[in-house]
This record gives sequence, C-alpha cells and structure tokens, in this order.
Amino acid sequence: MSANTSHGSSTSSSPAPASAAGRPGITSPAGFRAAGLHCGVKADAARNDLTLIVCDRDASAAGVFTQNRTCAAPVLVSREVLRSTGGRARAIVANSGNANAATGEPGMRDARRMAELAVQAAGGGAALVCSTGLIGNPLPVGKIEAGIRTAAGKLARGPEVDLAAARGIMTTDAGPKMSGHTGTVAGRTVTVAGIAKGAGMIAPNMATMLAFVTTDAVVAPVVLQMLLTRAVDASFNTIRVDGHTSTNDTVLVLASGLAGHAEIDAPDTPAAREFAALLDRVCLDLALMIVGDGEGADKLCEIRVEGAASDAEARAIACSLADSPLWKCALTAGHANWGRVVCATGNVMSRGGPEDLRVELGGTLVYDRGLPTGAPAEALAAAMAADPVQVRILLTHGTGRSLIRTCDINHKYITENTGKST
Amino acid sequence: MSANTSHGSSTSSSPAPASAAGRPGITSPAGFRAAGLHCGVKADAARNDLTLIVCDRDASAAGVFTQNRTCAAPVLVSREVLRSTGGRARAIVANSGNANAATGEPGMRDARRMAELAVQAAGGGAALVCSTGLIGNPLPVGKIEAGIRTAAGKLARGPEVDLAAARGIMTTDAGPKMSGHTGTVAGRTVTVAGIAKGAGMIAPNMATMLAFVTTDAVVAPVVLQMLLTRAVDASFNTIRVDGHTSTNDTVLVLASGLAGHAEIDAPDTPAAREFAALLDRVCLDLALMIVGDGEGADKLCEIRVEGAASDAEARAIACSLADSPLWKCALTAGHANWGRVVCATGNVMSRGGPEDLRVELGGTLVYDRGLPTGAPAEALAAAMAADPVQVRILLTHGTGRSLIRTCDINHKYITENTGKST
Repeated sequence: MSANTSHGSSTSSSPAPASAAGRPGITSPAGFRAAGLHCGVKADAARNDLTLIVCDRDASAAGVFTQNRTCAAPVLVSREVLRSTGGRARAIVANSGNANAATGEPGMRDARRMAELAVQAAGGGAALVCSTGLIGNPLPVGKIEAGIRTAAGKLARGPEVDLAAARGIMTTDAGPKMSGHTGTVAGRTVTVAGIAKGAGMIAPNMATMLAFVTTDAVVAPVVLQMLLTRAVDASFNTIRVDGHTSTNDTVLVLASGLAGHAEIDAPDTPAAREFAALLDRVCLDLALMIVGDGEGADKLCEIRVEGAASDAEARAIACSLADSPLWKCALTAGHANWGRVVCATGNVMSRGGPEDLRVELGGTLVYDRGLPTGAPAEALAAAMAADPVQVRILLTHGTGRSLIRTCDINHKYITENTGKST
Repeated sequence: MSANTSHGSSTSSSPAPASAAGRPGITSPAGFRAAGLHCGVKADAARNDLTLIVCDRDASAAGVFTQNRTCAAPVLVSREVLRSTGGRARAIVANSGNANAATGEPGMRDARRMAELAVQAAGGGAALVCSTGLIGNPLPVGKIEAGIRTAAGKLARGPEVDLAAARGIMTTDAGPKMSGHTGTVAGRTVTVAGIAKGAGMIAPNMATMLAFVTTDAVVAPVVLQMLLTRAVDASFNTIRVDGHTSTNDTVLVLASGLAGHAEIDAPDTPAAREFAALLDRVCLDLALMIVGDGEGADKLCEIRVEGAASDAEARAIACSLADSPLWKCALTAGHANWGRVVCATGNVMSRGGPEDLRVELGGTLVYDRGLPTGAPAEALAAAMAADPVQVRILLTHGTGRSLIRTCDINHKYITENTGKST
C-alpha cells in the first residue's frame, strides 16, 4: 500500500509538489494519497465517478452535513463514523452519478459497504463516505466495489491525482474545483487543500454540494470540528444558488497531524487562528467556485445586510433577495431594480417599516428610509455592470449582519434544467 | 351622477345584464358602476391604466392587504380608510403602471388625493385606493387626477365597462381576469363578481396582485371582513408564483346591500354560508387565473400536504416545493423527479425523517417511507403530463394540511424578466 506516483514523491509523509497551477492539491499535505477514476456509475466512460482519499495514519476528522431531514444514506453513515470514532478516520470515498438518497435500508447497506472497502484500501481505521447524483435510484454497488478496489491500487500523490480526484465527484459541474494554501502554524509549514463539487442551479436532479479538505496540521478532532463549523458558516453557508439544501451536502476535513507542530487543542489559541485562516481560505475558495459555476451563472451578487435585529433576521433578508427569481433576472439583464430589494426586505423584516431601511447598489445609496434618492443613471448602470454586483441593505434595528453570495438566472439555467433527464 | 350605459340598464340599483361570456361582471351586482380608461401613466395609449368602481350608496367594505413591511402608500391609505369608517366605502380607484411604493410622504399625499377625487366621483362617502406597477417612481398624479375626473363622467354598467375596468389594472397580464357568480342568499338572488390582476412571475418589476369584488349582498362590515379573510386564505393565499409578497397586494370587496335579504350579521349563519360560497368561488376563480397567467406558465401544479404536525408545517413544506426552481423546471420538462419532492420536504420538516414520509405523483405512490416504490414509467409520465400536475405529500405527524397551487418556470419567464425594463 505504499505510494507509487508518477511525480517522484515516493512516500505520503513528505509534502508533495504543488499542482500545475502552483497551488497545493488534495494530496499535497503530508500523509495523503488519492485516486479518481471511472467505475461505471456514469454512462460516459470519459467521466470519472469515483474518488478515494486515504491518509496513511488515523487522521483527525470533522464533518458538516446537510440539515435535510431526508438526508442520504452516506450522510447517516459518515455521521455515525465520526461519532463512534470520536473524530478519527483514514479515508474518504465518494461516488458521483447516484446520490444513494431515498434508498432506504438497502442504501444504508451500500454506503456501509463503500466505507468497508475504503477502510481496506487505507489498511485500517475508519472511512467516511459520500454520494452525489440522482436521488431515488439503487446504488450500482457492484461497480463501485470494483472501482474502490481499483482505486486502492492506484493511490498516489501529485497534480494529476488531485485533478482526477476532483473530477471523480463532479456531476454537471463545468469544471473541477480545487484550492490549496500553505502557511505557518505554530512555526511550522502547514498545507490545507480541498476539492469540491457544486450543483444547485446546475442539474435537473443533482443538487449536492460536496467538499473534501486535507491538511497536515496537528489538530485535536474536537477543535477541528469547531474550526470547520466556523469555516463552513463563513463560506459554504454564505452561498445561495437555488435556496434548497440537498439530501447529500457534506463538507469533510482530514488532518494527518504530520506538520510537526504542537497539537492544536483549543479553538482560540494563536496556532488555532493561524490554522483557521488557512482552512477558511480554502473553504471560501471552494464556495466561490461553486456559486460561480451554476451552469448559466453569468453574474455573481454579494448581498450584505447590516443593522438587523439579529444575525438570523439579517440572513433571512439576504436569502429572501438571493432567492428572488426576479432579482436574479435583474442581475442577468443589468436592471437596477432596487424596488425589488426593498420588497424582498419588507417581506421578511421582523418589525418596523420603510423608515428603518436604506439600500445601496454598488456603494450608491438608492433608497433612503422610504424615499428614492434619485441616484444618477450612470451610477446605477455601473453598479449593475460590476461582477459581483454589490447590494447593501442597512437597517436600524441592531447589530445583526449577514453576507450571502448568489448568482443570476438565465436561459442557460432553463435549458440545462429542462433538458434530457439523466 | 346617474348611470348612463350603452346597455340599457339605466340605474345602478337594478341588476345589470351578464357579461358577453354569460357571467356576471363587476357592475352586475345592484348598485355598482365602473369605468376603465387610459390616462397616461402607461406610455401606450391603447392600454388602460385607470379603473374606477363606484357604489351608489355606502357599501360594506372589507380588505385584505400585503403583509410586506415596506408596503405601498395606497395600502396604508386604504387600511386607514377601512379603520376610520368602520368598513364603509363607496368607491375603489386604482391605477396601473406605477406602484406608488417606496415613494415616502409624497406618495402618501398622492394616494390620498386619488381617494379624494374618487369620493367626489362617488358623490360622497369614502374611497379605497390601489396602485400597481414600477416600484420607486413618483406617481404622475396630475395625469391620474385628470383620469379620475374623466372616469367619473363615464361611469356605467355592463360587459364593456366590466372589461375596461379589468383592463385598467393590468400590467403585463396576458389578459383581463374576471369572474362572477349568482346564487341564492337568504331566499334572494345575490351576485358576486370580481376582477383581478396578477404578476409575480410576469414582470421584471411589477409584482402586485390586486383583486376587487363587488356584490349586492347585505352584509355587516365586520362579517364581510371575516368572510373575505377566509375566502382569501382559501384562494389567493394558496397560489404561489415566485414566493414573494409584493408591496401592493390588495383584495377589496364592496357590498352594496341592495339584494333585499336580511343583513348577514354573523359569520356562521346559513345565509352567511350561502354568501361565503359565492365569495369563495369568485376569489378562487380569480386566483386560478392569476397563477395560470405567469407569463410563460405552461403548466400548473397542485401541491397537497397532509398529516403534518400543523397547518403551518404543511404550508411550509408545500411552499418549499412550490418555490423550488428545479421542481418548476421538472414541470416544464415533464420529468417525474420525485426525489426533488422528497428533498424539498426534508428541508422544512419540523421533525422525523424518511420513515414519516410518502409521496404521490398523480395518485401514484412513488416514495414510501424511505424507499422508492418502483412506480411504472407510464404512470409517472401520465402524472407529469396532467395539467395541473398533482403532488401529494403525506406525513405521519398529525392532522396539519395545506394546498398550494404553483406554475412552472421556462424560457418565456426569463425572456420576459430580462427584457427591456419598462
């Protein structure tokens, strides 16, 4: 089970070379190998549909999962693994092309079988499992079993493997999504890298967001979970494509602990903050790639709400606008329809009225406590031409704030989503 | 101020002839005259933009208004009129092409001025006022004042007037929306008729729903308000186009009291139920016309949720599905993507999981407590070919239920909403 790559990094315990783009990849942190390949879940043999990521020792593991109450079998299995191991795992295995959701007890058996085979590939420990694709079809578990065995023999490090792994979790993503950053934690060099797939506006029946992050940082599982939860709140939880949480959404991180610094065992130490900065950056990179890759997304929009009664009210207001198909069309068309912003806000404000509300587009105040400001047309045009379009909604209720990133809706979205069902 | 119509019904106190389609119109109930015309708010002189409805005596009046906290000036004025008169009014005046929303104190002055002129046209009493159109532009109140004066001189009864009045409140509706029914209330013939305009998915920046209902029933204002609230809950509040309540949504009813039966002074008497049945029918007719007229709406969908912990949970689940752009695309494409129904439900279920959930499409059980049923493809194709598509979501939590009616999303919606801003 020794690493055997085409890139000369003969063991997984030393840092691997950065990817072709010069950025660390999922196998760059010390301790990790991966493989991505086609095993037959997808009809097109040119498209990868299986990803295996293995750490050569028990890694600290943490996960953030969908809140959907009809969540998929692999979500239930991965949660259980984290619970029973106290946050230790050696592998992540994921297939695309089938979500293994709404598949009942057979789906649970299939997810557990995937985890077992991944554990064998890792030579012990525990494995986390994910699936993404069509909801409601039985998993072709025979193909996946064979695929995991093949992947186990191909585990390697380096840019080609990083790319293959990123491709293994794609459904209708326009391209692979990868990020990696290196920094200093407690005086040592630490690498954090990740891959993600995003859907939502992309696919007719595949609306899963997955992200896997590897790092060689030395972090206690409980702290890793806290830092991941914070990172996800500031990244994946700020993107809003179609307003619906899928049955399979999962973010996982494995920390091999090979970077050689003292273990991070509390969330607010200087070392924890150094590591969190890297983790946050990788999560935000991946989140922005997801929202930027709604098939059809030509335009991004950042919605900032400030002065709300609570962060929850601020988020509700931002989501109300982000989910408005009319505002999404305004983004496409470049129409400065700020009345739509006022209306979306008014629908979910907890109290008060126009007198409590100001709206800015691209830094220009367009609505001031009940009245249009008569902002010049050129300023409005410039605000809507910017990418991302910047909306700021200012209330007088308190200190609650939120930032949500969304994208437009256009003909490509309709074409994609009314096309042949696959 | 006597009626002067081209249809020979020389006074407004006798029932007018039914409309060309054989159904009563807005001026059919005894006591009502109306006018609809172009006064210049809209650029196109062929399109009506002003509607005036007048009762020749103080009518019982009731209204249901948007819950939006940035509601428009006319909403504030009409609410105030109903409050200060105890539910009495003689006129409704409405313009289209400008929402008089987000217009501050000048907007309030303009709305009050419209009401004043309508009162003059009605020869006294009080008037309710509505506007629909672009948010955030000052009302061209001079044009509207002249328009109301002209309308006052044209007040009449009959099908042509009914149609002109329905057209006066249209924005980008594909056509006028009218309904009327006649029945027996406390042994007398009573007519209930209404006009509506609907938007939501239709227009880039005009998302108002307005409906005006006239009747000659004899109903105390407080009872009229109760019955209207119930009727709106079962009609306008069950339609879901884009999930957003506009700043201007308004439903108004005027009851002239000329039908000659004893006054309905309690909501649960036999006479009240007879009248409510007519009122419910007119409201439901108009609501269905609105949801059927999303520009681009090729397909309707009825979503029934049963067995929820509460009606509120049931409604949240139904709205979660109705607002899903992916489900809307599935309607367009005819894809039986029931996994999307499971997912939308799981996002808002208050408790439990797959074991509590069954889903039917067109009467065929497709998902049974965690597992696909393997429903035959022909049954699924037939379910998606039906119009409306019927979705039933069955929970095991309690007796909460909800019915929501929605429509698909397709290229026509995008074209309409990204087109030239008007």
